[in-house]
Amino acid sequence: MPANFKTALIAARDIAEAGVRSALSGVDLPVAEAMSYAVIGGKGLRAFLVLEGAKLHNRASASAAPAAAAIEALHAYSLVHDDLPCMDDDALRRGLPTVHKKWNEATAVLAGDALQALAFQLVLQTQCSAEARVALALSLAEAAGLHGMVGGQALDIAAETAAAPLTLPEIERLQAGKTGALIEWSAMAGARMASADPTALQIYGRALGRAFQIWDDVLDVEGDAAKVGKALRKDDAAGKATFVSLLGLDQAKRRAAALVEEACDALSSYETRADCLRDAARFVIARET
Amino acid sequence: MPANFKTALIAARDIAEAGVRSALSGVDLPVAEAMSYAVIGGKGLRAFLVLEGAKLHNRASASAAPAAAAIEALHAYSLVHDDLPCMDDDALRRGLPTVHKKWNEATAVLAGDALQALAFQLVLQTQCSAEARVALALSLAEAAGLHGMVGGQALDIAAETAAAPLTLPEIERLQAGKTGALIEWSAMAGARMASADPTALQIYGRALGRAFQIWDDVLDVEGDAAKVGKALRKDDAAGKATFVSLLGLDQAKRRAAALVEEACDALSSYETRADCLRDAARFVIARET
Repeated sequence: MPANFKTALIAARDIAEAGVRSALSGVDLPVAEAMSYAVIGGKGLRAFLVLEGAKLHNRASASAAPAAAAIEALHAYSLVHDDLPCMDDDALRRGLPTVHKKWNEATAVLAGDALQALAFQLVLQTQCSAEARVALALSLAEAAGLHGMVGGQALDIAAETAAAPLTLPEIERLQAGKTGALIEWSAMAGARMASADPTALQIYGRALGRAFQIWDDVLDVEGDAAKVGKALRKDDAAGKATFVSLLGLDQAKRRAAALVEEACDALSSYETRADCLRDAARFVIARET
Repeated sequence: MPANFKTALIAARDIAEAGVRSALSGVDLPVAEAMSYAVIGGKGLRAFLVLEGAKLHNRASASAAPAAAAIEALHAYSLVHDDLPCMDDDALRRGLPTVHKKWNEATAVLAGDALQALAFQLVLQTQCSAEARVALALSLAEAAGLHGMVGGQALDIAAETAAAPLTLPEIERLQAGKTGALIEWSAMAGARMASADPTALQIYGRALGRAFQIWDDVLDVEGDAAKVGKALRKDDAAGKATFVSLLGLDQAKRRAAALVEEACDALSSYETRADCLRDAARFVIARET
């Protein structure tokens, strides 16, 4: 991992975690502890995208920090609910017990619910004009909901009981919602804060999200469960279609590499100031976890 | 039920349902159907409060409609998740199968999640200044989250495993979150849209919410399950403290009546224009469902 990117990623994760922790301080309930637990220890990629995009539009970290914390809270909520027994039924996340294993299902449902509300609370505290805050929060609601992330999760669940495995366009639509929508939102957030044109960052974020998901499928086949921190090869065992099962391992990797190129090229107008975002894109298809 | 109030309540419910339905149109997934099902058939009390408060501040129904739809979507999400097997484990709601019974648990989790996102999407589409939209959405996030509704639900769950039944101040804190926060938000929304002082409507909403919850406990003891549309006397069977178990039936009723008086008095500056809100408060302790 390039040193600059690594430093920025850790800083972004710390900023996001501090934002969430501060919002939870003073509440002495298991659900508050579970919310904090769910957010801590994530990679912080989405917070990094928010803060880097903000920097490109001359917004200081401090003013963009609530949006970075918001997207990590939203992402954490989706993982907590996704791990529930009635959903993916996962016992491990980032190498640690999932929230419903460490506490119980009711606490996991409520912690996820409160993290979603917290995400909207935080994003609305971003330091920018009221118009920009409305744009940030409205686009976050769209990215999180039926036409974004939850829609993708619903397609995923429908696929489990479908007669035939999904086709490539169906998988792409599913992933565009499930993983892509939040990554795209994160990349665009900085431009939105500045009420600037977010198109270049949107193209970057969309390509990055696609590469990210393809690489997750690659890791599910080639990865080391101890490093990835969760159970692997569940998709294959369940007969689920993935980018790897549909494209083959080699072509999946080539497609991910092409998407990374596309992501980097989209940032040309930002010149070398976007190098850290380019490093992030290249890292997505080099990571082992 | 006074005719004016009944007409306004039905109109509010229709406006809220239309807002939700229109946001869901074009999505052909069971989760979208479940979202619509969860919203349809509610009493519409929260939407009514939003629209009446808006009218007092000279905001037309059409401009306030997204906020009315938002609060009904948020309320519906909380019911869907509250009914889950790991939470209250209820099979019936408004006399019909709960979402996880009609579909399945995963669909209920996702429908609730998407309804919460939809609530924020809708509230941010309220026709008012960007500053007012930020104030509406931010206060909604606070009312919905750990310091509001979910906090109250978490206290409710903690109470189930507590060694001793809750005391009166503990029950009041629990209910202020679980039921009170959204009712108070609804009452205040119209003033917020107009960037006016929401204090009178806040006092009204807070007293109304308290009266509402006391009356729910009264109905749980005196009510007719067929009319109420859900299982009754579960609290008593579970040995849970309620306003009735703590105050006795007579004193609980007297306290509810005093709160309704307080709610009505708080609206004095609105003179007769607030009569429909006063009728609503009086109805809360006359209702059989």
